[in-house]
Amino acid sequence: MIRREFDRGLEGNVEQFTTIAIPGIPEIKEGDDIGTIICKQSRGIGGLLGGDIIVVASKIISKAEGRIIDKSSIKVSDKANELSQATGKPAPVCQLILDESSDLIVRGHTIVAHHKLGYILTSAGVDQVDEFHISLIPEDPDLSAKKMREKIEELSGKKIAVVITDSEGREDRAGAGAVALGVSGIDSIRRTASPSGKQQEETISDMIANAASLLIGQRGKNTPAVVLRGLNIGRNTESRLQDYLRK
Amino acid sequence: MIRREFDRGLEGNVEQFTTIAIPGIPEIKEGDDIGTIICKQSRGIGGLLGGDIIVVASKIISKAEGRIIDKSSIKVSDKANELSQATGKPAPVCQLILDESSDLIVRGHTIVAHHKLGYILTSAGVDQVDEFHISLIPEDPDLSAKKMREKIEELSGKKIAVVITDSEGREDRAGAGAVALGVSGIDSIRRTASPSGKQQEETISDMIANAASLLIGQRGKNTPAVVLRGLNIGRNTESRLQDYLRK
Repeated sequence: MIRREFDRGLEGNVEQFTTIAIPGIPEIKEGDDIGTIICKQSRGIGGLLGGDIIVVASKIISKAEGRIIDKSSIKVSDKANELSQATGKPAPVCQLILDESSDLIVRGHTIVAHHKLGYILTSAGVDQVDEFHISLIPEDPDLSAKKMREKIEELSGKKIAVVITDSEGREDRAGAGAVALGVSGIDSIRRTASPSGKQQEETISDMIANAASLLIGQRGKNTPAVVLRGLNIGRNTESRLQDYLRK
Repeated sequence: MIRREFDRGLEGNVEQFTTIAIPGIPEIKEGDDIGTIICKQSRGIGGLLGGDIIVVASKIISKAEGRIIDKSSIKVSDKANELSQATGKPAPVCQLILDESSDLIVRGHTIVAHHKLGYILTSAGVDQVDEFHISLIPEDPDLSAKKMREKIEELSGKKIAVVITDSEGREDRAGAGAVALGVSGIDSIRRTASPSGKQQEETISDMIANAASLLIGQRGKNTPAVVLRGLNIGRNTESRLQDYLRK
């Protein structure tokens, strides 16, 4: 359907996909069912289609799953105070970074953490939301993605995929890009052979997260959920990003 | 134009963009003018539009710019032989990695290199093309992007942007995503304020590179050039990715 515009009088087999922001997602609160909200709001883009890949910002899943921590509830250890002095980050944030990670490296003001789930994430994905609250990444992003996929499929009757994304920087450049934290419905990896026969593995879940983040990233616009439409990626309902982490 | 499909009877202000492979790019040889080839082949997608962002795989620029090295021409040093023994990579490849980088870290079979241009790149972007040839990244990817942008703008009469991309992995996960090596016509970084007032910097050049790589990556299909259409990113003809590298 979305291909029609280009199919008219053009060469056949033009490969393309469209990235569409789902409009009007309300402020998410603890206990909200994001899958239901996405289904409702996707009417604003004419509904979902089979094969759609829905990319959701991890922050709203953290909110729905109660992963927003009250700063005053955090007991700060000596180690967290030391980390705070070394990095200039607030001590409660440092405490949560220590709690969330198995290992960390301090580089100036940056903390590169091995999150206990296996990701390498700046500050272990711990983010100061406002003066009083700090967010953690979802407890099991693959499971969050799976539950959301199943709910959206049940409500929409369409077979779709879900990718959960977080912003994440690279050491060599300013600014942050995106990574996938969890997937359901498609594989994280695409394996292809180059013309020379060399096997190639691509982290398509991260490419999808980045494509969506071009729209998600524009803060203040309530676009934490985005659809990628027209990508021909094989279905896999058993997939987990965890299986592709190098631990 | 591409927005029409969704504008019919739907909510206003739906944000979206389309990622389209430019079909039928021939095998690139040294001396080829890729800008001219892209303009010609873009007829297959109905021509270019103002605001299009054209993403090009660095590999074909390396080919056009004579950055494919004959393996037999490489004089291997003792240091390259040592690196070869430590990593299992061919000694000529190791020699070029040493030549291209200012500093490197060996992690098992992986070489994380500080490329002399400032990027952190696996194997310094050195890639074995076939049994007899090894490719280096373009000598100055920002300049390659600028020349290509100017040529495409001259031929098409449209104001466009160019992003040069290479595949690149992350330490925590299998497979490779993409990074931008050079840009022209748009900034590498987008600065926005979150609702809480926190300044946010996003590496949109990398997000664009990744979105395109969902189509570029399918090897053997001759899709080394991809258009992102419908993204509303401000024009900057003086931009260089180099200015956003943390050196």
